[in-house]
Amino acid sequence: MTETYVHGYHPRENERLQDQAGTLVELLHSDTSYPSGSLVLEAGCGVGAQTVTLAQRSPAARFTSIDVSADSVAEAKRVTDAAGLTNVRFQQADIFALPFAPESFDHVFVCFVLEHLTRPVEALAILNGLLRPGGTMTVIEGDHGSTYFHPDSVSAQMAIQCQVELQRLAGGNALIGRQVYPLMVEAGLDAVHVSPRMVYVDSSRPDLVDGFTRKTFTAMIEGVRQSAIEAGITEPGAFDAGVRDLYRTAETDGVFCYTFFKGVGEKGRKPA
Amino acid sequence: MTETYVHGYHPRENERLQDQAGTLVELLHSDTSYPSGSLVLEAGCGVGAQTVTLAQRSPAARFTSIDVSADSVAEAKRVTDAAGLTNVRFQQADIFALPFAPESFDHVFVCFVLEHLTRPVEALAILNGLLRPGGTMTVIEGDHGSTYFHPDSVSAQMAIQCQVELQRLAGGNALIGRQVYPLMVEAGLDAVHVSPRMVYVDSSRPDLVDGFTRKTFTAMIEGVRQSAIEAGITEPGAFDAGVRDLYRTAETDGVFCYTFFKGVGEKGRKPA
Repeated sequence: MTETYVHGYHPRENERLQDQAGTLVELLHSDTSYPSGSLVLEAGCGVGAQTVTLAQRSPAARFTSIDVSADSVAEAKRVTDAAGLTNVRFQQADIFALPFAPESFDHVFVCFVLEHLTRPVEALAILNGLLRPGGTMTVIEGDHGSTYFHPDSVSAQMAIQCQVELQRLAGGNALIGRQVYPLMVEAGLDAVHVSPRMVYVDSSRPDLVDGFTRKTFTAMIEGVRQSAIEAGITEPGAFDAGVRDLYRTAETDGVFCYTFFKGVGEKGRKPA
Repeated sequence: MTETYVHGYHPRENERLQDQAGTLVELLHSDTSYPSGSLVLEAGCGVGAQTVTLAQRSPAARFTSIDVSADSVAEAKRVTDAAGLTNVRFQQADIFALPFAPESFDHVFVCFVLEHLTRPVEALAILNGLLRPGGTMTVIEGDHGSTYFHPDSVSAQMAIQCQVELQRLAGGNALIGRQVYPLMVEAGLDAVHVSPRMVYVDSSRPDLVDGFTRKTFTAMIEGVRQSAIEAGITEPGAFDAGVRDLYRTAETDGVFCYTFFKGVGEKGRKPA
């Protein structure tokens, strides 16, 4: 079954996702590295935003990165080639119909993917089946419901809600970050540990003001303007007021908060 | 001027505040300690929940702990005496009419106080005036708008909103945590650094499920039931459904998130 995606398939969008990955690399990935020789499946690599970081941090691990979109896979390959990486092979594949043998990977990495799926637990259970006993699965998701800011603004909250609603209409869940723990447990992972990664932005952190509040989060919301209007979820004036208020939080007295959730679990030693 | 408080003035409430302090001590206070001989003003000590931790962690500092309520001060003294502490003196005093000379303290500590004040910046500016140049101010506040959970529930959100609304009606602001940075900057503090302290609770952390989700946060919301009904903000059935859904987040597949904000700033070397 093919899942419907909300974002990640247009050139400007690709640039935004690369920016986002740059700003968030330390926060999300600094504690992820894989031993020499281990086989790692990156499920849902998109345009390779995380792939470069993963492969650079674990140069002696061997990555297989898949995505349901052949275009994304091609772009991801271009990006990793440009970075001089030789430890990643790419393949177009659907998480729900993967061409791999059971227990054929040491580790699985899934980042910003479950949010797009109608059946996230089933996806995780399938991926768990590909792990050797004792292997690990890492899952990272954001949660738009973790967004709050100063000055507070009903318009801005409504603009964010447009993105949540569009993602819901496409079968996904933009509020899935908080569910990483129960989803991984339900999918059969053992020893699941989830750690929140909060992005806190005030004007003493200008890199985040620009790199996260403006260019990552607000740019993402701005990017659904046309879709939200066409879907009848909002009107141009209301949406634009919300986006304006999101940019307002990037001013000197503004504050912006968002949280990602990172879960790591183990494939049990007994058959699931 | 006397400020109106929403909580902290009943025996069961005191117990809840002590429980809360126990659970959160490491998260909020592990990085606060004061040098030998330094004079520290704790402004708004309430029933002493934080005072014990502060004084124990800095046994050679000398604390002056004040609160606008004489009853709270008496209870705080009882608690610190019971803990065998001898480095705290208590005084009933109003932040807006303090009996201390300018620049007479090395450090000021303000925890869960601004949320109750109608003029938080003015309060911080007054406290800044009591700091010697080069001294530090530490401010800690929660933010009810940082609350989200799984399973999500409109009823639970509305029950929380009752507390926010009651605090607003009393002149306070239950969403003030996110504003710690701009408030401290506006009050004239230099080199302000704010760090969020997120409480993330899932069933792999049973101490927090019990100590935070149930006995701190949900108990606090439950505690405003009568006031919220009397104020006409909610009805018994709706409120009780919300509280039930908050307790639901403490079950095996539940998740609960809340964030405190801790700011530390310096009194500038030049006159403010």
